[in-house]
Amino acid sequence: MTLLSALITPACVIDINRLERNSERMLTKCRTVGLPLRPHVKTLKSTQAAAIYAPLPSAITVSTLAEARYFAGAGYQDILYAVGLTPNKYEAVNKLLADGVAITVAVDNPSAVDALTRASSLFCKPLSVVIELDVDDHRAGIAPESETLLSMAKQINDAEQLAFSGVMAHAGASYGCNTQAAQTAMAKQECERTAIAAERLADAGLPCRVVSVGSTPTALSDYKQTGITEIRAGVYATFDLVMADLNVCAVEDIALSVLTTVIGHQPKKNWVLVDAGWMGLSRDKGSNNHGYGLVTDASGKVLDGWYVSMTNQEHGIIEHKDKLPIPDGLFEFGSQLRILPNHACATAGQYRKYFVTRDNQTVSEVWDSADGW
Amino acid sequence: MTLLSALITPACVIDINRLERNSERMLTKCRTVGLPLRPHVKTLKSTQAAAIYAPLPSAITVSTLAEARYFAGAGYQDILYAVGLTPNKYEAVNKLLADGVAITVAVDNPSAVDALTRASSLFCKPLSVVIELDVDDHRAGIAPESETLLSMAKQINDAEQLAFSGVMAHAGASYGCNTQAAQTAMAKQECERTAIAAERLADAGLPCRVVSVGSTPTALSDYKQTGITEIRAGVYATFDLVMADLNVCAVEDIALSVLTTVIGHQPKKNWVLVDAGWMGLSRDKGSNNHGYGLVTDASGKVLDGWYVSMTNQEHGIIEHKDKLPIPDGLFEFGSQLRILPNHACATAGQYRKYFVTRDNQTVSEVWDSADGW
Repeated sequence: MTLLSALITPACVIDINRLERNSERMLTKCRTVGLPLRPHVKTLKSTQAAAIYAPLPSAITVSTLAEARYFAGAGYQDILYAVGLTPNKYEAVNKLLADGVAITVAVDNPSAVDALTRASSLFCKPLSVVIELDVDDHRAGIAPESETLLSMAKQINDAEQLAFSGVMAHAGASYGCNTQAAQTAMAKQECERTAIAAERLADAGLPCRVVSVGSTPTALSDYKQTGITEIRAGVYATFDLVMADLNVCAVEDIALSVLTTVIGHQPKKNWVLVDAGWMGLSRDKGSNNHGYGLVTDASGKVLDGWYVSMTNQEHGIIEHKDKLPIPDGLFEFGSQLRILPNHACATAGQYRKYFVTRDNQTVSEVWDSADGW
Repeated sequence: MTLLSALITPACVIDINRLERNSERMLTKCRTVGLPLRPHVKTLKSTQAAAIYAPLPSAITVSTLAEARYFAGAGYQDILYAVGLTPNKYEAVNKLLADGVAITVAVDNPSAVDALTRASSLFCKPLSVVIELDVDDHRAGIAPESETLLSMAKQINDAEQLAFSGVMAHAGASYGCNTQAAQTAMAKQECERTAIAAERLADAGLPCRVVSVGSTPTALSDYKQTGITEIRAGVYATFDLVMADLNVCAVEDIALSVLTTVIGHQPKKNWVLVDAGWMGLSRDKGSNNHGYGLVTDASGKVLDGWYVSMTNQEHGIIEHKDKLPIPDGLFEFGSQLRILPNHACATAGQYRKYFVTRDNQTVSEVWDSADGW
């Protein structure tokens, strides 16, 4: 039996009770709206974690082909690769097809469709293709109202070895929605604009098998989606301080933390030095409200006002938001703390294994994760 | 023969000509001052890279025990672990000692010395210990003028299985020195304050075998160090935009870049979307002057004014600093670019392998790296 206190720090710790509770919350929401969930596995990139929030034979979403290969190796068959596909990745996609994986790829512009069409005879089986929509003027995607949407879909549909499957959208702008009302409005916009695209395509004789939307804030909002076929979301399983700042979760729901050890102090500055720097925490400052993360004691209880104010590669500096002196008996040399992450995807991305705990004292499991691209 | 253009992107590329040139520059500087260099290998964490800038039997500096084990496995014997040692790492240090590695550890406070002294009979061989000094009021370390320095050294010296070896300092404040004059002044301060500590210890009958200082800006400054025994530095081998902003190097010296592929555009915003997000670039904004990095063409030529303005996990957004429209023929779908990093340590830390090129077209070697803690 390994104790958390015996781990080499920094170490990434998963509170499995919280992970289970968060996963159940999203599944309940999807059941309520009557839609299947296609979890985005990019946060933890771990099949053991996915066994809780995306149990086989769940459909999943990935952000890299390395994730696709790793999850396919564990039996996941229905995989959406949600980043615009480029020619240097065709061969890797074809390898997945050859291995029997029902991978779906995304494109959002005519040049991407031209390139894919020209190369389509390369694919050993029909490749499922969705078109990414821009529903929130946020990042990528094509306008649901555009003529180009229809011509792209037709070109895909006509190509040998390509199968036009539908549309996907991600309302990334929901991360800027600070109220439940704004999140609900964004969910409505994400859903309605995506449904418009699907209707236009169906009217043009190009029905969409996949009409996919989602982000954690919109998926958990009060809006009841209609006209779509599935919901995607990812960070809900662990949550993080960005989600807590949006009131999508409570700080006490955050299932991922970084275990760290006190290596020293700078008493005149009221600083506590720990062995979690940006290599262990990531450089993600999230909402810019909590430095590099909030501090809890070794059991996960938030130490009010204490946060990681600065980081170097393997050093973190903890101080109180009101510059309070270091209390006696707290933060002693060699004692352990945990840091709640601004952005769970970025923090988890710094680790290849996670130490799972159910009692906040012992390690019940060690999970692995996909790496690279 | 693998072409860079065939790589799955994002990929981390090393321009070996630049790496060799940068390494030679630092070695020449150290030869000029007549001091040995103990390179910090935390930037690339790669034995194949170290073969150029820290060839065996060079002494090295590491930031994690995982680096220590990885480099020890390649034959490195004289290793300084430069992060304050805590009790949860004693067993891993002892394993290195048992494997014949002459590891040196660092402490900077009496509690750390107390803990180490109490546990010292654990170590299978005498463990070399240095005391970290605070020479610039920047992060960790104990004041060179303090009585505590002497009492800590004596306590280490008296302990069974501990060997007091000397002092180390790192003028991290040099990263805030924007002129050559300020860097030289900081080098003088770093060196003189460290030498004071060594003199005081020698006078107290505790001679220092190791009197170690360094940071890339101070090591490359005009100051001629005396009274010390070695210079440490790390990022000089690759350099980065932070170092270029300090005029420690030119942008054209930067040996590390991230190869990325254009996945689409948002023409109305003059955005180019690429497949390098913060997972491939890191979230490090460096001097806050270049977003998430400057853009070059596939051959490494800087595209003036183009930078990565925003990132998501696997998406980067490139735009011009003056919001210029996307020029015809540049940034076409599927074309490749390279991103120069703000902070090479953070960007390299996102990768487990590096693609090395000498001609900016073909991959001559693939290097691995240490991972984890």
